[in-house]
Amino acid sequence: TTSLSVAVLPGDGIGREVMAACLALLAAAEAVSGGPALALTPHPAGAQYYLESGDALPAATVAACRNADAILFGAMGWPDVRFPDGTEIIPQLDLRMEFDLYAGVRPIRWFPGLPRILADERARGIDFVLVREQTEGLFYARGRGQVIEDRESCDTMRITRAGTARASAFAFGLAERRRARRGSARVTCIDKANVFTSMAFFRKVFDEVAAAYPEIAADHAYVDAMALTMVKKPWALDVMVTENMFGDILSDLAAGLVGGMGMAPSADIGDRHALFQPAHGTAPDIAGQGKANPCAMFLSAAMMLDWLAERHAAPELEVRARLIEAAIAVTLSSGTTPMEVGGDADCAAMTRATIAALPAA
Amino acid sequence: TTSLSVAVLPGDGIGREVMAACLALLAAAEAVSGGPALALTPHPAGAQYYLESGDALPAATVAACRNADAILFGAMGWPDVRFPDGTEIIPQLDLRMEFDLYAGVRPIRWFPGLPRILADERARGIDFVLVREQTEGLFYARGRGQVIEDRESCDTMRITRAGTARASAFAFGLAERRRARRGSARVTCIDKANVFTSMAFFRKVFDEVAAAYPEIAADHAYVDAMALTMVKKPWALDVMVTENMFGDILSDLAAGLVGGMGMAPSADIGDRHALFQPAHGTAPDIAGQGKANPCAMFLSAAMMLDWLAERHAAPELEVRARLIEAAIAVTLSSGTTPMEVGGDADCAAMTRATIAALPAA
Ligand SMILES: CC(C)[C@H](C(=O)O)[C@@H](O)C(=O)O
Ligand SMILES: CC(C)[C@H](C(=O)O)[C@@H](O)C(=O)O
Repeated sequence: TTSLSVAVLPGDGIGREVMAACLALLAAAEAVSGGPALALTPHPAGAQYYLESGDALPAATVAACRNADAILFGAMGWPDVRFPDGTEIIPQLDLRMEFDLYAGVRPIRWFPGLPRILADERARGIDFVLVREQTEGLFYARGRGQVIEDRESCDTMRITRAGTARASAFAFGLAERRRARRGSARVTCIDKANVFTSMAFFRKVFDEVAAAYPEIAADHAYVDAMALTMVKKPWALDVMVTENMFGDILSDLAAGLVGGMGMAPSADIGDRHALFQPAHGTAPDIAGQGKANPCAMFLSAAMMLDWLAERHAAPELEVRARLIEAAIAVTLSSGTTPMEVGGDADCAAMTRATIAALPAA
Repeated sequence: TTSLSVAVLPGDGIGREVMAACLALLAAAEAVSGGPALALTPHPAGAQYYLESGDALPAATVAACRNADAILFGAMGWPDVRFPDGTEIIPQLDLRMEFDLYAGVRPIRWFPGLPRILADERARGIDFVLVREQTEGLFYARGRGQVIEDRESCDTMRITRAGTARASAFAFGLAERRRARRGSARVTCIDKANVFTSMAFFRKVFDEVAAAYPEIAADHAYVDAMALTMVKKPWALDVMVTENMFGDILSDLAAGLVGGMGMAPSADIGDRHALFQPAHGTAPDIAGQGKANPCAMFLSAAMMLDWLAERHAAPELEVRARLIEAAIAVTLSSGTTPMEVGGDADCAAMTRATIAALPAA
């Protein structure tokens, strides 16, 4: 392959700001690394586009995402821009369903130079990955709920064998790669099997999948106990897999441990398609002021390069991903600190510094 | 009233250890404060009793709880002791339903002398209360779930107007009392109204209740964003109310911020009955070794005294609650530190020190 196509969806608010920064970084990294060029094409979607066009996720954008080799996503939505029925504009959830992006991969890693969140020194060693099942669980209920006579409302959490098995297998695959790098790996199933039938089923299917990976340790934790462990000894965590809603909550908690959503990349991965986006939203409070932390967007782009490298047997893209990560690490450790975590580097300053930290072309 | 009756359910594992410590402290505090005596009567329930009798929560114990003025609870359950259908022994959930204990009150407060969990100095100011709705939400599904053809399983989250309204009103009532003490108060509704119909309904009912308390500020947060806020600036939190499952996760997270479950008391309050218990479980890993942190049990007993004081117009019981809290604060700040948070004071040492910190009789 000489060129790979990426559908770029900047979206709204700081999504646009960090995306512009990311495109500049990707271009600079491409100039110094070999390997396939990326053809990055922007496509409209989101709350602002809904105001302009009446369409939050146009069919042409979905088609472009389907045809692209990968999807790079900023952030979408805006507090007061809603559909006529009052629901929020959340195209990222639609895309997860549309492209069956079942594995929500949320790596959490500490970077030297970041101000400490946890007092314990060992928090410098935080390096874990949460795999959030993303096509069912409680989110199965989205769009299906009803309020009965203004008196009650139910939403149903659905766990299937197939859904749990593929998310679990993804987590073990990820653990195998970490094991190659780190010598050992463990996958923890996070559930509430002590109370819910569906969660006991989730655990059972996880255990069956685990049996196929005898070289990877497997264990379980209740979701409430895991919330405590994340605060008390997150350095002991490795790979985890959990239900959609639990993963949503725990991944935000986890991002907080390393500084906030602006430090937390994510990948929504399916068997054919994948979407990469920072874990943060559009941040109306700081949008338009250039204050956003682009690190999560940069790290998400690095995850995209890794995924493309594997699928297209293009190891140069993996090199490019490592160059980007190293440039971020150098930037942070040399004292350029994003405003989000209390520093004074705005989005432009972070971007300049990161690009400057790439090796010379 | 010259005497109030308390049904005491020590339960299993460290539940028994911290309960024994608590009864000693309550006796000592009663000796130095005026007011009604407590008639504390132990009753069997839990995993150990199930092994002995085939009954995890005997009818006589339930009846004793019903007739008592309050219920004081240790912890129950044991990993390998299960009902024939494989489900765990969790009498505390049964009691919540049996006595309609809809408000799960989980105060989180920092005590000087505790080792720091969060690096930020402001974490010393952590002082908030989570009100967990405890009779419906996702826990409505308990005992109702099914697995269909080993292929899928559903659990239904149920939100009712009545259930949401009473939990919300409880939170505002609590905020009114905090306002009297602190000058201002705010109640935050924690939901996922952007995705789920039932959660939008929860928020709507909360807003209706909020309108009846114009002097208390009210706002909203999504549950994932709140998990982040709890890590990044928990000192800004005040009173919160949320769905059952969300409350379960967030309250463990919150306990972690002040040292762990052994620092987290709780009260399960209904209109007629109330149960007070430490937020921790039976801790099989340390049970029988005398290492448990009794602070959460002590603080739960203080919550019981406050609740009894209000219901029975017995201000001396409130004084007794303050004496216990002050004795815990003095103990911790003078360097007696529970093993749970890295100190060397075992359960007996913590208990001796706390009793010694009460004023002389
Ligand atoms: C925007 C929101 C609906 C979304 C979710 O809940 O999945 C976000 O919180 C996330 O984690 O990607
Ligand atoms: C023991 C368990 C079922 C219980 C719950 O989930 O409610 C506990 O975690 C709690 O928070 O009281």
